[in-house]
Amino acid sequence: MTHSSLSLPLEENVVIVGIGLIGGSLAAAIKRRNVARTVIGVGRSSSRLQEARTAGLIDEATTDISSVLERANLVVFCTPVDRIVQDVLQFASAAGDRSGGMLLTDVGSVKAEICQRLSAVKDFVGSHPIAGSHKHGFEAADADLFEGRTCVLTPIPSSPVGQIDRLDRFWRSVGMRTVHLAPDVHDRKLAITSHLPHLIASALASTLTDEDRAFTGSGFRDTTRVAAGAPDLWTDIFLQNAESVIEGLDHFQEWVARFRAALISRDSAALHALLENGQSSRIALDQLNSGIE
Amino acid sequence: MTHSSLSLPLEENVVIVGIGLIGGSLAAAIKRRNVARTVIGVGRSSSRLQEARTAGLIDEATTDISSVLERANLVVFCTPVDRIVQDVLQFASAAGDRSGGMLLTDVGSVKAEICQRLSAVKDFVGSHPIAGSHKHGFEAADADLFEGRTCVLTPIPSSPVGQIDRLDRFWRSVGMRTVHLAPDVHDRKLAITSHLPHLIASALASTLTDEDRAFTGSGFRDTTRVAAGAPDLWTDIFLQNAESVIEGLDHFQEWVARFRAALISRDSAALHALLENGQSSRIALDQLNSGIE
Repeated sequence: MTHSSLSLPLEENVVIVGIGLIGGSLAAAIKRRNVARTVIGVGRSSSRLQEARTAGLIDEATTDISSVLERANLVVFCTPVDRIVQDVLQFASAAGDRSGGMLLTDVGSVKAEICQRLSAVKDFVGSHPIAGSHKHGFEAADADLFEGRTCVLTPIPSSPVGQIDRLDRFWRSVGMRTVHLAPDVHDRKLAITSHLPHLIASALASTLTDEDRAFTGSGFRDTTRVAAGAPDLWTDIFLQNAESVIEGLDHFQEWVARFRAALISRDSAALHALLENGQSSRIALDQLNSGIE
Repeated sequence: MTHSSLSLPLEENVVIVGIGLIGGSLAAAIKRRNVARTVIGVGRSSSRLQEARTAGLIDEATTDISSVLERANLVVFCTPVDRIVQDVLQFASAAGDRSGGMLLTDVGSVKAEICQRLSAVKDFVGSHPIAGSHKHGFEAADADLFEGRTCVLTPIPSSPVGQIDRLDRFWRSVGMRTVHLAPDVHDRKLAITSHLPHLIASALASTLTDEDRAFTGSGFRDTTRVAAGAPDLWTDIFLQNAESVIEGLDHFQEWVARFRAALISRDSAALHALLENGQSSRIALDQLNSGIE
């Protein structure tokens, strides 16, 4: 089901709201693969939008989302998680009757609260393309960011089947594997795979004193890299997924407790077994990501 | 005090025992900077040693360490931490009276136990060049691995001052900044900066179930990268530094407990403050490493 660049575009006009790393990369991927005829970027700063246009990421730019109401076919909200609900509601309300045939989605990394609060917007289906980088801004946009990565679609029981299929085709057309999960199931998984690592990296970074900084190596740097992420964004993610993050943290603590017990008793065999378990889990991850699996 | 490549070599014959990533990189750095006239590699596999010689990392190779006794000036033991003590003792005993003028050191990442057990070997002074990679083997050797990084020297009260100075010059000549610390002080610092991150990365990797693996992104991969390290090596490091690692872990847990409390009470301000603290600590680390500090 790969979308060939010689066939007709999947969508006529794709509107991307928020042209940062993800929005910009999505725009680049759509253009590279001829997924849409036109990519329209919507943002708050017209100078930034013009730069993105000059960089060839988008075909048109506007700070006034209502100006695209007549033409939008697929609208992807790439704004921060605490803004998505209001942005979608505002757009859907302005679109009103003109929304026929339109499909709305977002790229937020927590889904239960967003999908619940948007459950009345029938043409909205949530997405979470699991792809990213610690870089920021459309200057770091990468048309291959989504290639081979997983996109989780989070339809709810009332989501129109045709719109789910259409969204699935869209994400596959930019190179992603798709999986459909209920929003709360998505959030429980991401609590472990994304939100817990952030909490741990941040706590570890805080454990380091100024005077010990010179004694860090690549291990400390790798392990804490994500802690450099924006506190505003991550506060909202943690608040929206607090219950699952606490659950994930408690599960993590069971493994830490095993390590601590083995350290206290100087139990070489137990330490080795724990380290082997972590190693094999980590190696399996590399194999998955290099497509060997 | 940069050692110019036009001046005389600092050492006549440097012997490197164990030609893996660190030993190989050290050999490459010595040759690139003309720090020694001859680099002799000692290892267990003659075919591997020949490959390292063909790759231009070492000038001579032998599996019989006693054959270098007559010529060795500086001997660097780059063997795993659980082998260093026996390797140095064996060498020092074979050298006997011929050891005059010789300087012995190691590159082990725990120092208290090693330096205590080798305290009778008067020409041994411990080192820990804090540089590395998750790669293995001399194929990944990098002549610039040590550039701008910190090397901790861990002399004990009986260490000859002349030998400490000589060792200091040596590490600076391959591009490192040097710091002198008592072995147990070194171990307490490294418990936080290296051993704790490894424990946490391993525990986090183990928290991931097979079915959630497809839902990981670059954050999980970065945070767990070091967990792929060799369990044999790390078991020994943890055993040799158990007390300080437990202490570091308990300190880390205080930060985790603050996160957990903020999550339970859905305390947005507390979460934001914690994330900001972690972020500023992590950003300070990048500034240090890019030399902006």
